[in-house]
Amino acid sequence: MIRIGILGYGNLGKGVESAIRQNPDMELTAVFTRRNPESLTIRSQGVPVLSTDDLTAMEDKIDVLILCGGSATDLPVQTPEYAKLFNVVDSFDTHAKIPEHFEKVEKAALAGEKTALISVGWDPGMFSLNRLYGNVILPEGKDYTFWGKGVSQGHSDAIRRVEGVKDGKQYTIPVEAALDAVRSGSNPELTTREKHIRECFVVAEEGADLAKIEAEIKNMPNYFADYDTIVHFISQEELQRDHSSIPHGGFVLRSGVTGMNKENKHLIEYQLKLDSNPEFTASVLVAYARAAYRMNKEGQCGCKTVFDVAPAYLSPLSGEELRKNLL
Amino acid sequence: MIRIGILGYGNLGKGVESAIRQNPDMELTAVFTRRNPESLTIRSQGVPVLSTDDLTAMEDKIDVLILCGGSATDLPVQTPEYAKLFNVVDSFDTHAKIPEHFEKVEKAALAGEKTALISVGWDPGMFSLNRLYGNVILPEGKDYTFWGKGVSQGHSDAIRRVEGVKDGKQYTIPVEAALDAVRSGSNPELTTREKHIRECFVVAEEGADLAKIEAEIKNMPNYFADYDTIVHFISQEELQRDHSSIPHGGFVLRSGVTGMNKENKHLIEYQLKLDSNPEFTASVLVAYARAAYRMNKEGQCGCKTVFDVAPAYLSPLSGEELRKNLL
Repeated sequence: MIRIGILGYGNLGKGVESAIRQNPDMELTAVFTRRNPESLTIRSQGVPVLSTDDLTAMEDKIDVLILCGGSATDLPVQTPEYAKLFNVVDSFDTHAKIPEHFEKVEKAALAGEKTALISVGWDPGMFSLNRLYGNVILPEGKDYTFWGKGVSQGHSDAIRRVEGVKDGKQYTIPVEAALDAVRSGSNPELTTREKHIRECFVVAEEGADLAKIEAEIKNMPNYFADYDTIVHFISQEELQRDHSSIPHGGFVLRSGVTGMNKENKHLIEYQLKLDSNPEFTASVLVAYARAAYRMNKEGQCGCKTVFDVAPAYLSPLSGEELRKNLL
Repeated sequence: MIRIGILGYGNLGKGVESAIRQNPDMELTAVFTRRNPESLTIRSQGVPVLSTDDLTAMEDKIDVLILCGGSATDLPVQTPEYAKLFNVVDSFDTHAKIPEHFEKVEKAALAGEKTALISVGWDPGMFSLNRLYGNVILPEGKDYTFWGKGVSQGHSDAIRRVEGVKDGKQYTIPVEAALDAVRSGSNPELTTREKHIRECFVVAEEGADLAKIEAEIKNMPNYFADYDTIVHFISQEELQRDHSSIPHGGFVLRSGVTGMNKENKHLIEYQLKLDSNPEFTASVLVAYARAAYRMNKEGQCGCKTVFDVAPAYLSPLSGEELRKNLL
């Protein structure tokens, strides 16, 4: 059995908790929290909730620690800190800061002779893998990544910071016409506006100026100004009833040519349709926890990404079974 | 530069020849043939065509030998034979015989301290990878593989063996309704007939009994009897004009659930749309040739499949570049 620890019990941590139950070679040893452990009730009976202060004493009881904090402030500190003591997996997803994060985690993991897998999930993660496979198979071609339809946490937060807004949720929606243009093999150059629509469901405070809120959202730089944005005002009850789930998904496409005269076109398309973004991400983390455990047993220490993990490490099946059943 | 040799100059070998030109870190050293080398003209100027008898003398001049023969009779002999002397890549695609092929190649490659990658292409190959990734992320779910629309060589050959048939081509077509049922998340049980249609374009000999040919095709066990089969009779000119390309493609889907009560559904879909089946397969072989070369340099000898190759080995980019640009 691979003994897993979870650090952080938000949506992602809860997703890891349920994913472990779907993997018979794994068990949940403990959930760690920075809060008072007694204030936290988890759904796995008999599994202790412990303080992060207890973590260092658990070095021999946990094979892989899955870090379920956020990329803004938690993981930049936690992953280097715990990679000295544990094999770890994180879902660090601030793309621009991955090189910096990698360097810090690499040092820590090598010092502790541990294996640390960073930026695991679906983007970065499965989408990155598909970009890589697409690029190496069709070196002359073009990459396209579309996100959605799904809830963007960052954009929902941005809406909620607007004056007069009580609550809100934002959906990123890929533009079907843009997807079709890519699928046609015409290798279009697509602007930000052509690729995605942003749809906002906003609960306004009583008496707020709706026109002002709408204008402020639509003109918000970086977040909305470069997009066609739709704003709906709804009640708190409607938001709760119709928009409380966390779906997401998207597309990675690679369009390229082969042949002596580049006369043959090819399209590779990878698509995800997810009812629960955190539970799917958690499921990817758990599969890579298995890989971290095994790679460490083989002495493959240091910081790794999905690019460095041979797929066979992810499966509980033997090489023989994999070749027989899945190849 | 990675020095590549090609053994066999059919459609696949020609595809490897053109794919090498799209990879600036590779060069084609020689094409080997069992025929009289003087009878063969290749499209790469200045590249020698040599006899397979010359292969053993080329051990120091070739980094990876790409085996472009067929799975029925060529590869079962050639891959074990040449894996003793060269790093090799093959596209062995007789699924049921992969374990046996693996054992033989493993022995040979270990004896020669070479790296042999077998069953590389898209199925087995990229489709296998997507089956594996889908299974490990969503352990509670169902796999679906659909092929087409594309030309099946085996079924085209079967048509041509029917009495009174001069020439013919068969397309495997996935049934859209079955794909939609899978995409709905209903996890349908699909029969062979429900998944694929077989469409045949047949050129009959003069005076042949068309009704008899059609019946014989439609009732052919293994090949057509379990499918809804459509037979069109056309002229040799029409066959030449409309059906001389070799498109193919298909879909791998994984439909599964997560959550404490398995309440959330997820769908992973991978799709290929290929103008040229052999050129796409060749492009995959060439990317894996890079991996074979590198893994051998690191001492990773023996027989491997796509499951054993960390994705980073496939790319000419450094780990740093990959993390920065594709993660």
